[in-house]
Amino acid sequence: MGEFDLISRYFHRPARRSPLGVGDDCALLAPAPGQQLAVSSDMLVEGRHFLSTVDPARLGHKALAVNLSDLAACGARPLAFTLALSLPSANEAWLAGFSRGLLALADEHACELVGGDTTRGPLNICITVFGEVPAGRALLRSGARAGDDLWVSGTLGDARLALEGFRGTLALDGDVFAAARQRMETPTPRVALGQALRGIASSAIDISDGLLGDLRHVLQASGVGATLETARALPLLAAGPAACGEDWALTCVLAGGDDYELAFTAPSSARAEVEAAGAASATPVTRIGRIEAEPGLRLLDGQGRALQRGFAGFDHFT
Amino acid sequence: MGEFDLISRYFHRPARRSPLGVGDDCALLAPAPGQQLAVSSDMLVEGRHFLSTVDPARLGHKALAVNLSDLAACGARPLAFTLALSLPSANEAWLAGFSRGLLALADEHACELVGGDTTRGPLNICITVFGEVPAGRALLRSGARAGDDLWVSGTLGDARLALEGFRGTLALDGDVFAAARQRMETPTPRVALGQALRGIASSAIDISDGLLGDLRHVLQASGVGATLETARALPLLAAGPAACGEDWALTCVLAGGDDYELAFTAPSSARAEVEAAGAASATPVTRIGRIEAEPGLRLLDGQGRALQRGFAGFDHFT
Repeated sequence: MGEFDLISRYFHRPARRSPLGVGDDCALLAPAPGQQLAVSSDMLVEGRHFLSTVDPARLGHKALAVNLSDLAACGARPLAFTLALSLPSANEAWLAGFSRGLLALADEHACELVGGDTTRGPLNICITVFGEVPAGRALLRSGARAGDDLWVSGTLGDARLALEGFRGTLALDGDVFAAARQRMETPTPRVALGQALRGIASSAIDISDGLLGDLRHVLQASGVGATLETARALPLLAAGPAACGEDWALTCVLAGGDDYELAFTAPSSARAEVEAAGAASATPVTRIGRIEAEPGLRLLDGQGRALQRGFAGFDHFT
Repeated sequence: MGEFDLISRYFHRPARRSPLGVGDDCALLAPAPGQQLAVSSDMLVEGRHFLSTVDPARLGHKALAVNLSDLAACGARPLAFTLALSLPSANEAWLAGFSRGLLALADEHACELVGGDTTRGPLNICITVFGEVPAGRALLRSGARAGDDLWVSGTLGDARLALEGFRGTLALDGDVFAAARQRMETPTPRVALGQALRGIASSAIDISDGLLGDLRHVLQASGVGATLETARALPLLAAGPAACGEDWALTCVLAGGDDYELAFTAPSSARAEVEAAGAASATPVTRIGRIEAEPGLRLLDGQGRALQRGFAGFDHFT
């Protein structure tokens, strides 16, 4: 099967909102007046971002989810995406599953596939996603201010827990492993929460490389520091510390990676509004610390003492 | 060296025209009022789109050039691009050369690097490019009409000639091979011509998969057919038919691939305007045939007889 047949069989759908979709040299996008276009690209490589054994439908979901998560972190509404795909062979069962998972999540967010590229090569998935955000209202990493609260959405560390289960580092109960694996393979991009936080949150980032690593980007961009209460963060592991012991639980929550939750800051006067944004988007939100003028990131244990322990960030390159 | 160091060392430059560039979850783009955004993604895989021996600066040039060529084919003005890069290792000499070639071409077209992703894996380069085009004025594949002339820009077949030189199929003179190799490795996207053809050309496509193959997309999208005079096309091989014999020359010109020239159609009443657009953009343009109501693509030889010969298109997947 040639490139063009592959594309049209699995990925070609008529353009809906976009002026021009798949099938010309370019797609055409027309952001509404007063809107800026938010753009993000993520590349997923077999063996690095996913295991070769992953269900293709789940992989299709995840490939788009990690990109939608970047839109969520900017408070943007999804519009469209392009897909570039390098495949070792034209495996129809794989393509059918992959496109099913991909397009189901796309439809859920009214995010239209408008173009792309298919080639033969080692399995590699590159998605570029486009969203709309009112001019000047995007959530940035640079807006955190001393005195703000530090919040996170959803649960943290589940993907890392599953990874350690796959690696055999941790022996997990069957149910715990299955639930953690589902979070790793089909993360939930917090798209509705991101939009609900516009005008409330002072900064936001999506947690793809681990809470501590990503939080450092916010602190650096904002020129501030933070104190994080690990006793508030620890319960965010969905399986609970009992699943793997408290030490591992803390590693998963603070330095797990692959979470695709939002870490965000907001003035402490806006606590009720943050809670309301969480409720309106059916997304749990948890306050885990505060932003301070003093640079650096300080971890407190349950007794309010400095936690003496190192955590490596999660980096898809090193 | 970690992902973040790599990005900031070689690819991080302050945003100029875009409201927000590299370093947040998303880049922000703000098309001017009345403009649509033209978007295209291309993925380049080692061994398939380039040889492992290619000079990294030339590869950086080509990776962006093939994307700018898609903007050219829509008549769009380049604005910005994202780069997703999978690399086997953080080779600094390679990164320095690659980024130099990439950013030199980007600067030439005022096309700003606004975001991306870096990961470890088999060498894979995925660029998504953004351009502006006045609403409703993009050049599409679907606008060719019976009676239109068929034109192409620049020279054709040089890249295929170089490829056959590398493969050892053709024994080329040193000068011929060097010139053809330069065209293969550093193609010239016809960005200025594409914009000059807005309002003149009725359809356009960039020739990446070979003239015949790409022309078929135009004919299909427009619901028309065409006659192509091979005697007009044959001289478009820069090295001339003497370099490889007439049979190979015709293969290179008609089914070569990797040309990144424009094939376009325009009413025969607009010949002077097409010539003027070529002159204004310092781009040679050559009329090689005509569009007809009868479906299909007919090739005529120098005596005006039907050419009895098959040509395979160029497909990066099969």
